[in-house]
This record gives sequence, structure tokens and C-alpha cells, in this order.
Amino acid sequence: MRVIGIDPGLRNLGWGIIEMEGPRLRHIANGTVHSAGEDLSLRLVALFDGLTAVIATHAPQAAAVEQTFVNKDAVATLKLGQARGIALLVPAQAGLAIGEYAPNAVKKAVVGVGHADKVQVQHMVRHQLPGVTFDSPDAADALAIAICHAHHLQSAARTGAAMLGRAALEITAGQARIRRAAR
Amino acid sequence: MRVIGIDPGLRNLGWGIIEMEGPRLRHIANGTVHSAGEDLSLRLVALFDGLTAVIATHAPQAAAVEQTFVNKDAVATLKLGQARGIALLVPAQAGLAIGEYAPNAVKKAVVGVGHADKVQVQHMVRHQLPGVTFDSPDAADALAIAICHAHHLQSAARTGAAMLGRAALEITAGQARIRRAAR
Repeated sequence: MRVIGIDPGLRNLGWGIIEMEGPRLRHIANGTVHSAGEDLSLRLVALFDGLTAVIATHAPQAAAVEQTFVNKDAVATLKLGQARGIALLVPAQAGLAIGEYAPNAVKKAVVGVGHADKVQVQHMVRHQLPGVTFDSPDAADALAIAICHAHHLQSAARTGAAMLGRAALEITAGQARIRRAAR
Repeated sequence: MRVIGIDPGLRNLGWGIIEMEGPRLRHIANGTVHSAGEDLSLRLVALFDGLTAVIATHAPQAAAVEQTFVNKDAVATLKLGQARGIALLVPAQAGLAIGEYAPNAVKKAVVGVGHADKVQVQHMVRHQLPGVTFDSPDAADALAIAICHAHHLQSAARTGAAMLGRAALEITAGQARIRRAAR
């Protein structure tokens, strides 16, 4: 399964794509969609076009977007919200389910602690995706988000498998009871 | 010239389209794109699809979007920002230039005062667009935004025409001076 992670931002929108091969992860690609200029609407079009092209090229089957840190600067929050709208729209248009993770959850999944700094996160992303080079710090963050989502999906798959296993045992036990009662 | 006004919101996105015929305005259509449900990304897709269909159907040549009132509730600001991202993206994708107006500027353009209430705004929208009925309060707001933008464009056209007129007079005067000097 191929997973795209997205770190939304108006100036720099980072993206990173990994492949889940059973318990292992493999780096596919990472990059940054830039937008600049005075006209906000044209910047949003640039983000939309760039992210749409990435998804068309790499065809991920799942997506994850970093939850925005809502701070006290309302103007910055609004700006980020507008970029984040595009980051959520584009994968949803491609039919992908989207996971959302708070920055601390991403750090915890990748490094093991929620208060890790950027250097530690990048170190662990390199460790889990051997040979990767980062297009930008935002692209590195996006790969960390993709790894976080992959861990989540792997754990959900294990839980699902375990639940299926338990359900199968219960069915077998139930059938045995029915057979005993029928004797 | 056909103008679309947009009042962005995540639950209800109002839109209204008017036609500028010289100094007069005519109502074309108004409506509301609704989005509901748990999944934010699917709600943004619903807004995108709805607004894209409106622009494809009515083919406006100019657009105006209300400037978002940035308040102290950061979560609400972020939510509105995400919807506003879609409201700016869709007309820009259709190649429309987008005017942005603060709520008070819209009220001032339509009613004459910046502190007018909703009832006064709707009364003046009905006055300027005879026979209009509103799909929703948000659609009425969107028509007010379209009217505000139309006034702005008309005034810009008058200023442009006046400047052209003055330039023509100066050219004529200049030519006369040249003729006098040549005698």
C-alpha cells in the first residue's frame, strides 16, 4: 500500500510518499509545492495543481495530513487554514481516506517521544527509509506524517487480524457447543 | 458583465450572480452549497463540486469573496479558512479575477453605512435587484457582495473613462501647440 503524507503550508506544502511492504517501509518520492505572489487565490491554484499532479503521478492509496497547530495569531491561522483546505481537498477528490495526526503524535510515532526536535525526526525518517534525501524540511515532515500513518494502518491491520482470529476461535467453540448439545 | 459574489462558510456557502448592464444591475441566480457530515475533506469536496457547477452553469466573468472576520475562536477561524480556500480556488481556476471586501465595505456599498444590519442589507439588495427571492441568508449576503463588486467595477470604469477623456484633451491641446509652433 502506498501512502502520501502532507505537511500543509501556503508558501511551502511538503509531500512524501512511501510504500508499505508488510512490516517494512520504502521511500518512493518526496517534494515541495511552492506558492508565491500577491494573489492568494492564484497561490491556492498553484498548491491545488501541484498536489493534484503529485497524486496523479504516484497514485497513493491512503493519505495523511498534519493537524494544524492553532495558535493565537488569527491571521496566520486563517492563511494556514486556506492552504490546509487544499491539502484535504485534493486527496479526497482522488477518493483517498485521509488520516489526521497532531504534530506530537507524528513525533511519537517516528521517534518514540512527542517532544522530539526536527533533527531527531529527520534522523529517524532517514533510518526508516534508507537512502532517502529530503527535498526540503517540509518534505521531511511530510515523510514523517506518512510513516506515522503507515504505523497506524499496520497496527490497525494487526488488530483487525487478531480480532478476526478471536472471532474464528469463538465460532469454532460455538460450533463445538452446538455439536455437543445436538448429541 | 456577469459577477458572482461568494459568502464562504463550511456548512453553508452562499453564492449570488448578477449582470451589470451599464449602470443597471440585474439578478441572474442565487443559491447555497451545503456541506455536512463528520469528514472535513468530503465536506470540502462538496463545496468544490457545488461551486464549480455554479460557475460552469452561469459563466461569471468576475468574482468577489467576503473577507473573513478573524475572531478570537482559533478553531472556528481555521474551519472558515478551509472553506474560504475553496471559495477562492474555484473562481481562480476558472480564470476569474477575485475582489475581496470586508463585511463593512459590503454594507457601505449596498446600504450606504458600514454598520447596517442584515434586514437593511436584504431590503437594499431587493431594491437593487427587483423581483429577487433569496435561497438563504447566505445567498442574500453573496448577492450583496456581488453588488459591492459591481459598484467598484463601475466606478473603476468611470475613473478609467475620465482618465482617457483627460488624456484625449491633453493630446488635442498638445497637437494645437505643435501646430501653432510650426506656423
